[in-house]
Amino acid sequence: MKPSGAARRSRRTASRRPPPPEEIEARVLDVLTQTGVQRDVPVVVGVSGGPDSLCLLETLHRLAIPVLVAHFNHELRAEADTEARAVAAQAKRLSVPYLEGRADVSAQARRRRVSIEAAARDCRYAFLFEQARSHDAQAIAVGHTADDQAETVLMHLLRGAGIRGLAGMSYRTILQSFDPAIPVVRPLLGVWRDEILAYCEARGLHPEHDASNDVSVFLRNRVRRELMPQLAEYNPNVRLALWRMAESVASDRDALKELSRARLEQVLLRQTADYTALDAHRLEESSGAVVRLVMRALLEQLTPGQDITYLQISRALQFVQDRGGRIARLAGGIVLSREAGVIYASHGESSLPLDAWPQLPPQRDSILVTIPGEIPLASGWNFIARPLVGPAPADRRSAPEADLFCARLDAERLPQHLELRIRRRGDRFRPLGLRGHSQKLSDFFINAKVPARARTRWPLLCSRDVIVWIAGFKPAEDFRQGPQTRRLAEFLVRRAA
Amino acid sequence: MKPSGAARRSRRTASRRPPPPEEIEARVLDVLTQTGVQRDVPVVVGVSGGPDSLCLLETLHRLAIPVLVAHFNHELRAEADTEARAVAAQAKRLSVPYLEGRADVSAQARRRRVSIEAAARDCRYAFLFEQARSHDAQAIAVGHTADDQAETVLMHLLRGAGIRGLAGMSYRTILQSFDPAIPVVRPLLGVWRDEILAYCEARGLHPEHDASNDVSVFLRNRVRRELMPQLAEYNPNVRLALWRMAESVASDRDALKELSRARLEQVLLRQTADYTALDAHRLEESSGAVVRLVMRALLEQLTPGQDITYLQISRALQFVQDRGGRIARLAGGIVLSREAGVIYASHGESSLPLDAWPQLPPQRDSILVTIPGEIPLASGWNFIARPLVGPAPADRRSAPEADLFCARLDAERLPQHLELRIRRRGDRFRPLGLRGHSQKLSDFFINAKVPARARTRWPLLCSRDVIVWIAGFKPAEDFRQGPQTRRLAEFLVRRAA
Repeated sequence: MKPSGAARRSRRTASRRPPPPEEIEARVLDVLTQTGVQRDVPVVVGVSGGPDSLCLLETLHRLAIPVLVAHFNHELRAEADTEARAVAAQAKRLSVPYLEGRADVSAQARRRRVSIEAAARDCRYAFLFEQARSHDAQAIAVGHTADDQAETVLMHLLRGAGIRGLAGMSYRTILQSFDPAIPVVRPLLGVWRDEILAYCEARGLHPEHDASNDVSVFLRNRVRRELMPQLAEYNPNVRLALWRMAESVASDRDALKELSRARLEQVLLRQTADYTALDAHRLEESSGAVVRLVMRALLEQLTPGQDITYLQISRALQFVQDRGGRIARLAGGIVLSREAGVIYASHGESSLPLDAWPQLPPQRDSILVTIPGEIPLASGWNFIARPLVGPAPADRRSAPEADLFCARLDAERLPQHLELRIRRRGDRFRPLGLRGHSQKLSDFFINAKVPARARTRWPLLCSRDVIVWIAGFKPAEDFRQGPQTRRLAEFLVRRAA
Repeated sequence: MKPSGAARRSRRTASRRPPPPEEIEARVLDVLTQTGVQRDVPVVVGVSGGPDSLCLLETLHRLAIPVLVAHFNHELRAEADTEARAVAAQAKRLSVPYLEGRADVSAQARRRRVSIEAAARDCRYAFLFEQARSHDAQAIAVGHTADDQAETVLMHLLRGAGIRGLAGMSYRTILQSFDPAIPVVRPLLGVWRDEILAYCEARGLHPEHDASNDVSVFLRNRVRRELMPQLAEYNPNVRLALWRMAESVASDRDALKELSRARLEQVLLRQTADYTALDAHRLEESSGAVVRLVMRALLEQLTPGQDITYLQISRALQFVQDRGGRIARLAGGIVLSREAGVIYASHGESSLPLDAWPQLPPQRDSILVTIPGEIPLASGWNFIARPLVGPAPADRRSAPEADLFCARLDAERLPQHLELRIRRRGDRFRPLGLRGHSQKLSDFFINAKVPARARTRWPLLCSRDVIVWIAGFKPAEDFRQGPQTRRLAEFLVRRAA
């Protein structure tokens, strides 16, 4: 969201002569238009009584937007009641409704074990959204200024931020945790504080409340009064530089969101209420930086309103890039799993489709294997056995590394009687690479992270009690090809496209 | 470029115990692998003699990378010659080649009217690239550290930056103005200065040169010694926060580059040595933020190695969004022009294809128009005249606003004799909306920004000396439909798809 007109105009530095009040109102109108605010539906205006919110109220009223004045008394300071009366008087002067909320914020903070600042914000917004809903307001307008923006991005930067933090506040934003539909708009985000003071003077407004007294903005005040002047020694226009950075980064952030959603669409195979299936190969073609963003777009879609952490994204990226990985559990209950070129994302494992895995067909617990031969499995899967004839050229000897649903074994070492069957109590397996040691099949399944629900009917290529190959894994030690191998047999488990 | 291993490991804060020298070497190897540095091709190492570059030289040498020590004497300080001798001694100790360059940087700066800092950098890199080319080196390695990175992004931030500046320095970068193929690599970009000092001590290296004496790093030193400690009062780990920001922003920058190039591919219709043709409609479907990036990707492709300015991108965006715009000249000699759903980008106007515009066919300067009737023009264009029969419903009265290649005129006011012809000396035109005033056709063409080369054979619908309609523009005042209009004639200029 970047109202370009407002952006263009607020490039004027604060040191110039303040603009006439009509220009401020025109700039506010510009933002309102670009943020989609209608001129005939009420807007709840958060008014503390300070210059910013008085200026906001006045401009909206003069632009003929129907406003409701909402004042929240945090009960944190002695002057709080006086200020509430002053705001009420402003509402009366404009003949617009006055709504007041209050809470013992200190007590809330103690009870919920959060900072005063966080408690104040939560209580205030809860009140504003409650009022917006009950008065059918289209939006909540708050008085954040260009200075607030510069200070905000600086604070984010000091704390540590990526482009989401560096973009600062938006002209229009949805706070999912408060309301999924009513936006918060910030019409003054391109107006500097001294322009606002000049506006108040020109329009005869007399703010009484001084926000800098608020205990809730301690850090912000220190940044404003100490750090900004220190930075101004390096660049007198540092506030403007920070403000512009936020505008520029916000534009790139929006572009990233749009482009990564589009890329997500491109790799999406199907989406049901239970799971999302992605084309693993197409996803893997992208760079890590892009996969990161696609996975973020996916997680945002699956867990709306939840914060997506860097760690979550990193785990998702690692899962995509580590092609051998079968399953990854992310925060928020999201499970990623992979099978035969498809990556599934689901809320918990149980909602995954069973057809994502090869399974013996119902009622058939054992099927004779002939070479060549083909056995239909459940859900469109097939088991194929065939000889690889002629002297095996070097490049055909081993199955493609990544394709664990293909095994090429020494045909002469294979037993005569082969069957495809489900697991039996006491099954053991000697996987390739375990130096001849065998392990319990149940342990193998657990270590290999085969979903529990898919284990019962997982296809095992066996000769009586000996497991030759478990589809999707490396074959048993005993039948692998060696230097003496003359004939190869190939076994494939495939799903019809 | 984000070597994730190095990134992961340098998250340790500098306040912890310094890692053993082997770990530093492993981290350097990690970066080398991920930046594609080969182990059997020489690397030119820029060595000032300070701890950073000595550590770099030592680690590369221990990793068995063939190195060439390159020292540049800026002749700025009294100790310069002593330092050069110390670096030469290091090269001798390792039995590797020593290359020395020198220039009177102060004199250069005066002559070229640039800062000492800029002149020093230019001279130094010119020397390093010259050496790299003449010794067939694969890359130039320089000793920038994690602290340098934090300081760099902070300086960029103070000066004003978007994500390109906030991403800081890259592990691997191509400096187009010096060499299009040999990269500069920064293997120590994830290593903190105090880790480097500890490394030098552990490996018995004795740096003599103190880079902080360099006049060329005055601002950097002030940032390092004054500003960083001031910021550390707000967050003791602010250097790490800045470093991580750069890593995170760099990842997003890379993703943006990749995704916007892909989007550019999607809107690309054709590309020749002379021009690039984009699908205007598909481009317009994207948000402004995305168009901005696509146009950046396009300009980067058309003017490799040149800086793309914010202003250039803004003009390109404005051109795309203002659908009536016909031509825009950007810095760097790039011309954007638009015609019938296609946006052309070219180096100068003359290289644009003429088939982008409707033109009368060769040797036919005047063609009789019948209604209905169709006249083939050059390059697959057609002129179509047809009556709109029946009482004109309101929505059919005017041609679609945006389609200036369609005119609907009052059939009863049109002259009997109509021809399609090229322009003649003295032609005048009374465009709709100019209150009946007429203007010279040549002026009209200039104001309307019709490319000069396309004016000669531009199709004009005329009745002898009277111009009725100029394809691509609003029709003449005299023939427009009014409240009395009963019959409409429609004229279209279209290009076969």
